[in-house]
Amino acid sequence: MFESASLPHVMTKAEFLAVEAPLRERLLDAQFEVAERRRAAVLVLINGSDGAGKGEVVNRLYDWLDDHFVETLSYGRPTDEERARPGAWRYWRDMPAKGRIGLVLGSWHHRALRNRALGRLSRAAYDDVLENMIRAEEMLRNEGVHLLKIWLHMDEREARRRLKKLREANGALRRPAVIEWDEFDSAKERARLADAAMEMVERTSTGDAPWAVVPAADPHYRDAAVGDLLLQTLARAAAEAPPSRRTLAVAEPRSSLPRPSLASALDLSRTADRETYSTQLANLQRRLTEATTSKAFRDRGLVLAFEGNDAAGKGGAIRRVREALDPRRFRVHGVAAPTDEERARPYLWRFWRNIPRRGDVAIFDRSWYGRVLVERVEGFAAPEDWMRAYQEINDFERELQDNGYVVLKFWLAISPDEQLKRFEDREAKPFKRYKLTPDDWRNREKWEIYETAMTEMIDRTSSRHAPWTIVEANDKKFARLKVLDAIVERLTNSHA
Amino acid sequence: MFESASLPHVMTKAEFLAVEAPLRERLLDAQFEVAERRRAAVLVLINGSDGAGKGEVVNRLYDWLDDHFVETLSYGRPTDEERARPGAWRYWRDMPAKGRIGLVLGSWHHRALRNRALGRLSRAAYDDVLENMIRAEEMLRNEGVHLLKIWLHMDEREARRRLKKLREANGALRRPAVIEWDEFDSAKERARLADAAMEMVERTSTGDAPWAVVPAADPHYRDAAVGDLLLQTLARAAAEAPPSRRTLAVAEPRSSLPRPSLASALDLSRTADRETYSTQLANLQRRLTEATTSKAFRDRGLVLAFEGNDAAGKGGAIRRVREALDPRRFRVHGVAAPTDEERARPYLWRFWRNIPRRGDVAIFDRSWYGRVLVERVEGFAAPEDWMRAYQEINDFERELQDNGYVVLKFWLAISPDEQLKRFEDREAKPFKRYKLTPDDWRNREKWEIYETAMTEMIDRTSSRHAPWTIVEANDKKFARLKVLDAIVERLTNSHA
Repeated sequence: MFESASLPHVMTKAEFLAVEAPLRERLLDAQFEVAERRRAAVLVLINGSDGAGKGEVVNRLYDWLDDHFVETLSYGRPTDEERARPGAWRYWRDMPAKGRIGLVLGSWHHRALRNRALGRLSRAAYDDVLENMIRAEEMLRNEGVHLLKIWLHMDEREARRRLKKLREANGALRRPAVIEWDEFDSAKERARLADAAMEMVERTSTGDAPWAVVPAADPHYRDAAVGDLLLQTLARAAAEAPPSRRTLAVAEPRSSLPRPSLASALDLSRTADRETYSTQLANLQRRLTEATTSKAFRDRGLVLAFEGNDAAGKGGAIRRVREALDPRRFRVHGVAAPTDEERARPYLWRFWRNIPRRGDVAIFDRSWYGRVLVERVEGFAAPEDWMRAYQEINDFERELQDNGYVVLKFWLAISPDEQLKRFEDREAKPFKRYKLTPDDWRNREKWEIYETAMTEMIDRTSSRHAPWTIVEANDKKFARLKVLDAIVERLTNSHA
Repeated sequence: MFESASLPHVMTKAEFLAVEAPLRERLLDAQFEVAERRRAAVLVLINGSDGAGKGEVVNRLYDWLDDHFVETLSYGRPTDEERARPGAWRYWRDMPAKGRIGLVLGSWHHRALRNRALGRLSRAAYDDVLENMIRAEEMLRNEGVHLLKIWLHMDEREARRRLKKLREANGALRRPAVIEWDEFDSAKERARLADAAMEMVERTSTGDAPWAVVPAADPHYRDAAVGDLLLQTLARAAAEAPPSRRTLAVAEPRSSLPRPSLASALDLSRTADRETYSTQLANLQRRLTEATTSKAFRDRGLVLAFEGNDAAGKGGAIRRVREALDPRRFRVHGVAAPTDEERARPYLWRFWRNIPRRGDVAIFDRSWYGRVLVERVEGFAAPEDWMRAYQEINDFERELQDNGYVVLKFWLAISPDEQLKRFEDREAKPFKRYKLTPDDWRNREKWEIYETAMTEMIDRTSSRHAPWTIVEANDKKFARLKVLDAIVERLTNSHA
């Protein structure tokens, strides 16, 4: 992987200056174009041998670029805030908006590499991490984030020499993010690190997101090469087509034969009488309180997604859940049309930013499933984008679960007649009128299309570890009990 | 994953007949279009619960299609031939040509599922297998193979009932490929199988190659649904654009600064004198004979790829290797322009078909690297295709190695002056004249472009387990010794 980068690459100061002037001009032009079009973001991942000058490269890029549209994303030891959430959260949190450039020090690659070299990741676990990276980077690419993955290469001997010099120099120079590798001191550890690095560069170099290996021994050459690579990347980001750039290889593979929807198979006549309701509600809420205040829950976390027909009673069900929770430890997220900030970032960003810390509860009133429901039906997302969303959502939920979170998804189903009754009720009562919008009436006309989308969504995302709970909701009391029961069941069993 | 497919899906005979007539006509039209255009192949993977009627579906499709362009690819227990090679070889061997339809029973999914249910694959190994499938299917898609992945779903109770019936029926009906699951008898095994199946459908459903779950309890509904899905797939295959359909997300990320090629860094003055040569040659050949006739080698296999400048002496080096091998156990493959048959299939097919059985040696005089050398330089492959080839080649070689094969790759390098001398020599000697073509002179003019491609190729494919050996070949004797030495070294060390 580093064969040609190990050859001498040198550039005199004069040569550098001759290259630098036109490069700066072109970089700025390209940067402004990306900033104006706002169709793509650029992430420059700066990794490499220690002492190779990762920090120097970042400084140089700041000199060259307009710093209004640049941000440094630097990851050292996770903060308390970060440690309290899934590992990927810190990267999601910092995702630059379209039009902007992020300079990343200590990217996800760095962390994996470090853990592998320290022997904290087994061979198999490392494999897994690399595969997840490939998938995550593919997703970013499809969401308009251009990655420039730079590996600054330096021979081991030269690297050690620089390390030594840095150590002898003023302590202020020892910024951990820059020379973190120096904790690897023994020949054995360093060999393991080199091997892990080579494997990473090999495995995660895909056709869409290959590594660029840059010889780093000569700072002039190094900086000029990085600048040139960034220019190429900016040119591609500026040329990013509007969404829906890929031809759909395959549409949802469903036969066009008539088929029952999952909703049609429900027995919506199920009810809970008043007495059962009040007894069971109290009982379930008590158990939910116990489960979410237990010691074990502090290492977990609960993520609930509520979807369903309009007026199916999501709000009422959420209220019964919320009542049982410590008010300091939950938050309800109403999901409506994305904000400008959200639209400027990969789709899942708006949900990642709201992933609770461990021990807390996040309740989503409508959720990440919007992409395969409303966005699909209304044509806001192109078929290739909602088709790949199924896998991305499954990956997202698996990641939460792998990090100890419990994920539950509810579909609250009512009949068209019941919905009509509730709409009319809302119209009649002034304090409920705000709940009813013209969209609700329009959606009603698309009942069957929504049922199809709902059926396919449940088929494709009812994963082994995060199954859907379909809730018969014509009777509100029955629905609330079923929701609470499902949560308590999962929390109780998954604690075992 | 199987939520809606578990609902009753029925179709009367009359309904079926009404659907069937127009379906057949459209299927034939679509099939002929695919056959005429010859831009894509279609693989219909028919998997599912036992007794769900996989064989019946295949029969039905034969009734409907023109069987001249259809082939059944059925995989049961591996044959001796297959067992002697990497697991993927059997699927590669059968790859249908563009324009044709393959009906696959017992696909790679089936095998993985079975091994997982039997507990032969650990959790981590199963994960690995699923990830490899995703990558392999992505590659097939990029190479113009359309996959229709059908999962015939049947409730466990119904499946058991059918199984029982099949068992009671005439033994002739018990074709192993059709009801292979019936070896899973205990509730525990069956639960593990169901879980593994669900995981597989979940994990390997990508946006580009999703599973189509077809309710299979009612044969009329089942067949009509499969026919309809096939029709959709054929329509997409017929619409397959000529190669180079995807916009390149990223080109080779190299700075445009001047940089040394790997060839330029070689010391081409290295020689071996006559005496050293004859002593060492005999010694190395003897050791090569020993290594390739040892008992341990029977479970391995050796794959050698020779690349290099024209007239660099690949033939002569190969001859010195070959002389040490058992003539029954090696084969030299000269790789020139692909045949029509090869062009009609995914790029790696022509190499997969020549992967030797274990214990044998395959020597490739030019190799799968053609895609990133001549095809790249001459523009026969689009940039996005040769860019993704690096990863595909690394995957390919890793697969060979995971199966116990030793892979070595040689680049024989000579200087332009030396090449000119050899060309002139070839022109002068009638018996060597056949070795020199007008292409050789043309390639010479592109010397530097080839050096760049060679440098990038070695950087991107010198993997940890299959590094390149660059051979200074101005002196033929030196080159031959270096080649032999590298092979003997690797064989000897990797046996350890």
